[in-house]
Amino acid sequence: MDTNKIYKSDIEIAQQATLLPIKHVAEKFLNLQEEELELYGKYKAKLSLTLLDRLKNKKPGQVILVTSINPTSAGEGKSTVTVGLGQALNQLNKKAIIAMREPSLGPTMGLKGGATGGGFSQVLPMDEINLHFTGDLHAITTANNALASFIDNHIYQGNKLRIDPRRIVWKRVLDLNDRSLRNITIGLGGPMNGVPREDHFDITVASEIMAILCLAESLSDLRTRLSKIVIGYTYENTPITVGELGYEGALTLLLKDAIKPNLVQTIEHTPAIIHGGPFANIAHGCNSLLATKMASKLGDYVVTEAGFGADLGAEKFLNIKARIGKISPAAVVIVATIRALKLHGGIKKENLLQENTTALMNGIANLNKHIETIKGFGLPYVVAINKFITDTDDEINAVIDWCDKEAHPQALCEVWEHGGKGGIDLANKVLSIIDSKENHFHQLYDQNESIKEKIMSIASKVYGATGVQYTSIAERQIKEFEQLGWSELPICMAKTQYSLTDQAHLVGRPENFTLTIREFKISLGAGFIVALTGNIMTMPGLPKKPAALAMDVNEAGFATGLF
Amino acid sequence: MDTNKIYKSDIEIAQQATLLPIKHVAEKFLNLQEEELELYGKYKAKLSLTLLDRLKNKKPGQVILVTSINPTSAGEGKSTVTVGLGQALNQLNKKAIIAMREPSLGPTMGLKGGATGGGFSQVLPMDEINLHFTGDLHAITTANNALASFIDNHIYQGNKLRIDPRRIVWKRVLDLNDRSLRNITIGLGGPMNGVPREDHFDITVASEIMAILCLAESLSDLRTRLSKIVIGYTYENTPITVGELGYEGALTLLLKDAIKPNLVQTIEHTPAIIHGGPFANIAHGCNSLLATKMASKLGDYVVTEAGFGADLGAEKFLNIKARIGKISPAAVVIVATIRALKLHGGIKKENLLQENTTALMNGIANLNKHIETIKGFGLPYVVAINKFITDTDDEINAVIDWCDKEAHPQALCEVWEHGGKGGIDLANKVLSIIDSKENHFHQLYDQNESIKEKIMSIASKVYGATGVQYTSIAERQIKEFEQLGWSELPICMAKTQYSLTDQAHLVGRPENFTLTIREFKISLGAGFIVALTGNIMTMPGLPKKPAALAMDVNEAGFATGLF
Repeated sequence: MDTNKIYKSDIEIAQQATLLPIKHVAEKFLNLQEEELELYGKYKAKLSLTLLDRLKNKKPGQVILVTSINPTSAGEGKSTVTVGLGQALNQLNKKAIIAMREPSLGPTMGLKGGATGGGFSQVLPMDEINLHFTGDLHAITTANNALASFIDNHIYQGNKLRIDPRRIVWKRVLDLNDRSLRNITIGLGGPMNGVPREDHFDITVASEIMAILCLAESLSDLRTRLSKIVIGYTYENTPITVGELGYEGALTLLLKDAIKPNLVQTIEHTPAIIHGGPFANIAHGCNSLLATKMASKLGDYVVTEAGFGADLGAEKFLNIKARIGKISPAAVVIVATIRALKLHGGIKKENLLQENTTALMNGIANLNKHIETIKGFGLPYVVAINKFITDTDDEINAVIDWCDKEAHPQALCEVWEHGGKGGIDLANKVLSIIDSKENHFHQLYDQNESIKEKIMSIASKVYGATGVQYTSIAERQIKEFEQLGWSELPICMAKTQYSLTDQAHLVGRPENFTLTIREFKISLGAGFIVALTGNIMTMPGLPKKPAALAMDVNEAGFATGLF
Repeated sequence: MDTNKIYKSDIEIAQQATLLPIKHVAEKFLNLQEEELELYGKYKAKLSLTLLDRLKNKKPGQVILVTSINPTSAGEGKSTVTVGLGQALNQLNKKAIIAMREPSLGPTMGLKGGATGGGFSQVLPMDEINLHFTGDLHAITTANNALASFIDNHIYQGNKLRIDPRRIVWKRVLDLNDRSLRNITIGLGGPMNGVPREDHFDITVASEIMAILCLAESLSDLRTRLSKIVIGYTYENTPITVGELGYEGALTLLLKDAIKPNLVQTIEHTPAIIHGGPFANIAHGCNSLLATKMASKLGDYVVTEAGFGADLGAEKFLNIKARIGKISPAAVVIVATIRALKLHGGIKKENLLQENTTALMNGIANLNKHIETIKGFGLPYVVAINKFITDTDDEINAVIDWCDKEAHPQALCEVWEHGGKGGIDLANKVLSIIDSKENHFHQLYDQNESIKEKIMSIASKVYGATGVQYTSIAERQIKEFEQLGWSELPICMAKTQYSLTDQAHLVGRPENFTLTIREFKISLGAGFIVALTGNIMTMPGLPKKPAALAMDVNEAGFATGLF
């Protein structure tokens, strides 16, 4: 890239793009029938679940999973590579379709800006996707909080089920960054205003309902999963479910449109299904199973991503989502940037602009561990070096040389600047490993192993831990879960995304460490056990100068200040 | 009506109706251009604000305001009459269009069921309108709570503006009935989790942002109004606005689609614009000004409604919305039912099924007061007797005879059972008073009168109070508002809807009473002063058996249990 060039912002590029009517994309590129499409404006549509019936005998396309090294504050551009790779495959005349997560509004208004890729590898209309989109997250917020109000109302109206107000585990949510709501007391103000108790707000993407929506295979499966949600415990410590309260029908009704995947297009008109976005720490961090399945019926190649690094999103995609949905990925792309590798090599963010191949080669240990993990799943992979404007040739060559020496397939990726054209090499490498490499995909553990065995598999094979220790609370919970018949579920690890360990500051590839499981949380509706390590933030806060301060809309209705 | 007949539920009637594609309604009935329509599925659309430019020289149609006697637990059917009248006008080959409020989800899940009319006078698709519709309320909830998070973040990050956490008047909202959130404490859990303070959640329709959205005339007017919102006071008791915090752009961006009115159709394909729905107690209780104006440019007759009885919704429509929007209504329809009049006559709800013309004629005093009020505004009116299955002929004749004797134009209305056909008599009477009666519309007070003078006008001319008394807090606030230059704004009364007085149990037409103003609230963005009488509930609770318990959705995606 030319450092003297003036680059446009993502929103400027997005708004200068010419979009096709989504109806056109659906009919011409995907052969969708008119009644399978529900338009939300000209450029967004919901897809009817009936198309899965129509295409039930069609052989699914190849699923390509995009993951990355442990994220750093420098940004890795996983979404950008996902979009760019989809576009590149299309340029190679492959029928490719992208399946991504929906952005959460809270981080958009806070630090992060949008989550729709960048440069010439974006999904559009980026402002609408980043704001309310088709209302899925609002529907989840509403269903989540309606359930909370039903619980508190049940207690207020006589508490027939004997719910212990101190043992309610169902939290309220908002799709915002709002640290003030992390710890609250509710029901104050006397007998007419409810029963006082402690409560918490999470961000919507941390709601079990989000995880459920992303794993449900149909409307009736959604209802069944919702009815299984454990909302708390009685005074006798017996779990209480949504089904016992009787609200699974109302919650399903509130989600009847949110369950339908959303179709949009990239800047190069590649179809993209954007649907669901559970947190990759407290939940499994992948887009919806329905979206991925639908994409695999509509395209020959599906490019999809999972949240954070391969230790979180990819591990959960492969051990949880792929297990439930019986998906067998064809290949994995591991995204790394020079900047992030240098941070993993121990330098400080303020020194990022200086060339530093020593730090880079130290940091590459992080990439190496994620490569080993993907190999451990029996999957072929390509390393995508996502080029940034500040990378030097020596730095890039150092990573390429290392890959070549270690026989890791690699490709330099310039999709931010050049769109699909910048991802042709990556696309060709991906196609080549799908065609030629052997694929021995398998999960890392059996569901019916003990809780501790399953956790040990993840900790040792994915994180590189030498052991796992449990707090006394966690030990007690394991016994309780076993007694309740909950132990034969996959494990959803809740761990910091910044490190392979449970301590955020330990970058690179730490060795000889022990993982501590602090506590468990049952997500019986989603169908997994959450194992919490360290303190997991489920409600982010806003920074000193939130991104929202720069946002506005002009009189023509176009967003400004989104990035 | 035949009491032996088995009547279908509203949702059954709604789901058996055949809808036209909304594109067809927009193009054929309203001559809208394609780019003025943004589809949300096949049967809902948003209307572009640009059509107001295109039609700026077109003479606006006649606005017919539908109001009612003080509501009772028996239900008055104001929305049903509004829809039925619109349909009837269309049957008479008039180009009529309906402008209504959007339902709030909280009451729908609680006691109320839907708010989309009933029987054969409904707006459709009723399930979607009653649930998430086009997401307007979710956008308002998000903007409201984003602002709350910005305020708490400002304090947390150093509190440059010296906002006093004890004097924050901006509340959080949810579009749910949730009494547990009426009084809460937030920011607990130590220094990393915000600054502890008392807080409150209101229902979304009570948010000032809802009132603002309903009074804004353009996107830039919306931004100006949002920037004027007073969110609280400094330690020195100086008001702090959104503009000082710098978030008016982000809030406007979050509302850029919500400001666009929504087009749907009735069961008889009469176009209906459904947009906005501020509470008629804490706010002004009317659909959006943009919707009403748009409707008046698209139709020759606009049938619109205002919340609760004529003492609340109509008074505010005429004194606030009509003033800001320079609307001069052509006629008013005052809805009454035999059942409600009997309750106003002093009988108990359990005795409603017994014929009781004595109670009925006692209760008619309530109707009479509202007629006087509408006359006081200089407007022609028709009394609509909304027929219920349990009404006896003697009871109906008693009301008709009274109207005839007092020379009040009246019409028996059977729009629930017969749709537009059941409202032909009402429609003819409305057309006749528009053509023949004199219209001397005027507001009841001048904006630049003193706060006390304005309140006295409403209390005496609309409620029939003999005087107004003020608490010491209210007296102090009047002085403060005058000093701050806020006194020359219209007054938005916050009063119980059940009585002409400030005490809910005083039904009928109470006399010789004094109104007490407890406190004021400034809604500087909406542009009015809220005068609170008694305890106004701004966050409803759920009943013992919420309507949500019966709700569900079948595998085909159709709602069940909505009524």
